[in-house]
Amino acid sequence: MSAENIDNPISYEILEDLEDDFEEVELELLRQQAKLTKDLYAKRAKVVSEIPNFWPLVFEQAPPDIDEYVQPTDSAVLLSSLVNLSVERFELPNGDPRSISIKFEFSENEYFENKVLEKKFWWRRNKDGWAGLVSEPVKINWKADKDLTSGMLDLVYQVWEDDKAGKGDDTEAKKKLKSQMESTGLDGVSFFAWFGFRGLSISEEENQAALKEEQEKRKARKEGKETEEEPEEEDEDDDDDEYEMEIFPTADDLAVCIAEDLWPGAIKYFLAAQEQDALSDINFESDEEMDDDEEDAQPSKKRKA
Amino acid sequence: MSAENIDNPISYEILEDLEDDFEEVELELLRQQAKLTKDLYAKRAKVVSEIPNFWPLVFEQAPPDIDEYVQPTDSAVLLSSLVNLSVERFELPNGDPRSISIKFEFSENEYFENKVLEKKFWWRRNKDGWAGLVSEPVKINWKADKDLTSGMLDLVYQVWEDDKAGKGDDTEAKKKLKSQMESTGLDGVSFFAWFGFRGLSISEEENQAALKEEQEKRKARKEGKETEEEPEEEDEDDDDDEYEMEIFPTADDLAVCIAEDLWPGAIKYFLAAQEQDALSDINFESDEEMDDDEEDAQPSKKRKA
Repeated sequence: MSAENIDNPISYEILEDLEDDFEEVELELLRQQAKLTKDLYAKRAKVVSEIPNFWPLVFEQAPPDIDEYVQPTDSAVLLSSLVNLSVERFELPNGDPRSISIKFEFSENEYFENKVLEKKFWWRRNKDGWAGLVSEPVKINWKADKDLTSGMLDLVYQVWEDDKAGKGDDTEAKKKLKSQMESTGLDGVSFFAWFGFRGLSISEEENQAALKEEQEKRKARKEGKETEEEPEEEDEDDDDDEYEMEIFPTADDLAVCIAEDLWPGAIKYFLAAQEQDALSDINFESDEEMDDDEEDAQPSKKRKA
Repeated sequence: MSAENIDNPISYEILEDLEDDFEEVELELLRQQAKLTKDLYAKRAKVVSEIPNFWPLVFEQAPPDIDEYVQPTDSAVLLSSLVNLSVERFELPNGDPRSISIKFEFSENEYFENKVLEKKFWWRRNKDGWAGLVSEPVKINWKADKDLTSGMLDLVYQVWEDDKAGKGDDTEAKKKLKSQMESTGLDGVSFFAWFGFRGLSISEEENQAALKEEQEKRKARKEGKETEEEPEEEDEDDDDDEYEMEIFPTADDLAVCIAEDLWPGAIKYFLAAQEQDALSDINFESDEEMDDDEEDAQPSKKRKA
């Protein structure tokens, strides 16, 4: 690290430079983590495959950041038919460890035909300096009258196909989706709408060019060269357009929460579900005794295994 | 890893064994992280020491899990006099990387005499298998009539001294503290009450013995030996006693949140504070223009640097 001449006031560039260095360490740690846990996750998958309802019970105890998106009907679908969940940092070993794929496996159920729903999120950077997770909509083959998103996921998928075919902004599907989103809003939307998320549209070429530009900028900063101040104008309108047709705008955050909390903590959540069950039994059997002391029936926050 | 004969139903021991293995990886990653970030944190400390109000601005943007504990007066104290914050995993390189010390440095202020308040949390295990963070109360030398905890922190400190002197359960300080906690409750208690946290009382001997026992149990499980089922009776009453005189019962969680979110994310929070300021200015200058479009004035959730 080169010596800096710290003028007062501190240049924001020094802070950004530091953030870049911290980011590189975090990426390195994610790579290490993936390497060190690979065999353990394989072993866990084998063990939990023998436990009936393991993953539905995990979801039942999911933290609020996940649970808030799981509607009662979603819960019923998961409980009756989720047989496996797996998370992979699929661009490793050479790509970005922040890219994640989340795969749900289902048994036969009354809602959809799919046995596997896999959603991939790519960590990408665009020419304006934005970096984050982008995705592609996943089609769900709903059974008759069982579409939990009331047709919105299908429309999102159609819009995506129209966009790929270069059909412009005035397609039937876009108009329909817009009007449905305006009339129903997104409150209480199904968890399964999450599969529709796209995020910013960033081509692989744009990503590569942006990565290269960023690396050169960082290198120049480290060598103490003056770097051009990027025009910091944030073209919010552009982004607004991009998110205007998202039926699950926070899908990227939810994906990170699944990958970094639910997935590594699955055994903990499963055991919490068991404890909860046991405590419900106690409550049922000795209602009167517990009256005064109901708080004790909650799994104690202060208990760590 | 030895082969397992997986009977149905799965033994909880296999799950616990897996959790132990995951825990060991996490500890290794914490050690790696401490090593890889050491120089960066030193550099950051140097840079931010030149930025007026860096740490108060970071606290201003603290995430809800921290912010909910900072009362308006606490905020004023931090804003007027917090000059540095530092977090250290002080038992490294040989001890537990989960032990953390959090050090606040203050300039002259009207509330207390201390220039430094350092709170240490030790990761400890007890004979019942509980593991977590324990601490010792830190005394704050309040100026006249400026005690933000209305005397509770002093009482906690006195109780701790009484306990060390073996004075039993009926001391003046205990009675006073209990009655004050009962009459005022802990809603809206000052952030500075956090310095009073003790947690479970675990002697170094008990910790060492418990660690040894746990290691032997893990080893036996890995070798496929039958291990005694621990009596799973959780003696809640015991714990309740331990937490009965805590004026900040969730201090350990808050410490982890400071160490794992506020501390590594300080630059991000500082920049968010700057952005907020800039946006407030815009709002102020062009109130009318913004009317229709107020959401744009919020830092966009979707923006990542």
